[in-house]
Amino acid sequence: MPFASRLIAACRQVGNPIVAGIDPRFSMLPEPLRNAFPDTRAGRADAFRTFGLQLIDVLTGRVPAVKFQAAFYENQGPEGMSALRDTLVYARTRRLLVILDGKRNDIGSTAEGYAEAYLAAHEDDLNAANAPWPADALTINAYLGSDGVNPFVQAASRSGNGLFALVRTSNPSARDFQDLVADGKPLYRHVAEHLAHWAKPHCDGSGYSLLGAVVGATYPEQIAELRQAMPGVLFLIPGYGAQGGSARDVATAFDAHGLGAIVNSSRGLAFAHLRNDLRSPHDANWQRAVETAVTEMAADLAENTPAGHLRSA
Amino acid sequence: MPFASRLIAACRQVGNPIVAGIDPRFSMLPEPLRNAFPDTRAGRADAFRTFGLQLIDVLTGRVPAVKFQAAFYENQGPEGMSALRDTLVYARTRRLLVILDGKRNDIGSTAEGYAEAYLAAHEDDLNAANAPWPADALTINAYLGSDGVNPFVQAASRSGNGLFALVRTSNPSARDFQDLVADGKPLYRHVAEHLAHWAKPHCDGSGYSLLGAVVGATYPEQIAELRQAMPGVLFLIPGYGAQGGSARDVATAFDAHGLGAIVNSSRGLAFAHLRNDLRSPHDANWQRAVETAVTEMAADLAENTPAGHLRSA
Repeated sequence: MPFASRLIAACRQVGNPIVAGIDPRFSMLPEPLRNAFPDTRAGRADAFRTFGLQLIDVLTGRVPAVKFQAAFYENQGPEGMSALRDTLVYARTRRLLVILDGKRNDIGSTAEGYAEAYLAAHEDDLNAANAPWPADALTINAYLGSDGVNPFVQAASRSGNGLFALVRTSNPSARDFQDLVADGKPLYRHVAEHLAHWAKPHCDGSGYSLLGAVVGATYPEQIAELRQAMPGVLFLIPGYGAQGGSARDVATAFDAHGLGAIVNSSRGLAFAHLRNDLRSPHDANWQRAVETAVTEMAADLAENTPAGHLRSA
Repeated sequence: MPFASRLIAACRQVGNPIVAGIDPRFSMLPEPLRNAFPDTRAGRADAFRTFGLQLIDVLTGRVPAVKFQAAFYENQGPEGMSALRDTLVYARTRRLLVILDGKRNDIGSTAEGYAEAYLAAHEDDLNAANAPWPADALTINAYLGSDGVNPFVQAASRSGNGLFALVRTSNPSARDFQDLVADGKPLYRHVAEHLAHWAKPHCDGSGYSLLGAVVGATYPEQIAELRQAMPGVLFLIPGYGAQGGSARDVATAFDAHGLGAIVNSSRGLAFAHLRNDLRSPHDANWQRAVETAVTEMAADLAENTPAGHLRSA
């Protein structure tokens, strides 16, 4: 099944559009994991692997997708990248969709190199022995224009996978460049319109394309504007929770059926054990805390956005 | 010695401003290397390691810096990233400056994660046991604005290393976004002016900053304009040779002393054995071909740009 249809089917199956972000930091891991591994590069990589596998066990059947933040694995060197591979592959075998957040960007054969690294595996090739890091989708940065996007689109099309290109990010200084106005429109709008154009030939039966957009949750009026400007483009929305975006802020990202957007939360889910109201002695019930946080986020999105329709579908 | 001074000293020592790009592809390796390793992910990673070490032996004392293209190592999975580490560390021990071309970009702790992965090693820590990939400089993409640049700058400042942020890239579709005109200036010029502002507090005794810029060789008039707009900013110039940029095209990137810019060539040097006039039976003399190509490029730059002054300095 092509990427957009696969993602939509997964959202319908679990009844929510949540992406659980996995951004591991050793100091924030539950105490049993911090105690089980030495605080060395190899030890931290092993801790990330074990944490990831246990987290995925909790998330399976509860969310449609997980998003790995490449930086935190690269941070532990080749050992970290090996832990990332094992965790990615495990998520695939549990039938969670995997988004690799690497914000990669380059042109020509270099872009193809990245695409082969992260997008080479077909959906049904669960162990993906020939794909270095077998993700279902990769985030990219479109600053280099079509030369920097097309090689990724071609590769994703070949393997049935997807992409999310940065359009409007959720950080305050996004305005430094993304809000500059050219020809009467901000830069992010130019990026959006190019993206919509590149995405269109790659729409599948769901009406959505393999080429999606990253649109931050912290600018609700821009989400509404961009939803209009990019029909058929899936939105990956960071910034819910920890970065200040609420369910109401992201409501306009969805179409009337509750489709067209997925909402990421990272520390709010994976590190729910750090929340005062979900703490347990020695973090013994950290997986229970994740369950509770996912349930709450799903209820919040169901109540305050069209994603509530996913439950009745 | 801080990064800019270190790079300038290295250019003066060898008498040229050449960055030898290492973008390994198995099918383009010299025949003895293709024959020595199986065409599997692990085999290719081993071939890249051996090729890199042998290439560095040729480059030592002949160029000031090497640039590794991350994509081609990521392409071989964790084994590739392990080969990259070994090759980076070897280049350090041979006193070649190492630029990692990863075009990384993100905000906050994620940007810090990338910076720690690539910029953690101090100059004199040759084996850099605690730094995953111990580069002297990393390329970054500034689309996210200051939130996406500052964490890299802070980390580079702490470890005495450097950065090169994309300003104007050398590919045709760079114009899709980089040439959009806002407030009477193209986007790349806005990026350049922000960069110059961010770079200024980090100038060292050489007059240049740890924060440099990537400016493509294929737009000579823009190189001249950007040299004016970014005093104190080192230029990393891709696009010489294979992508069509000539020595004359890049001449205006240098100051009157032949400083302020470094010029990259990748396949033109590392894969010089594929040039018709430098071929040898079974690629037996591939290292000799690299030597010749480096000598020719150095002579071309010395004759047609102010970098000729590096030789008499």
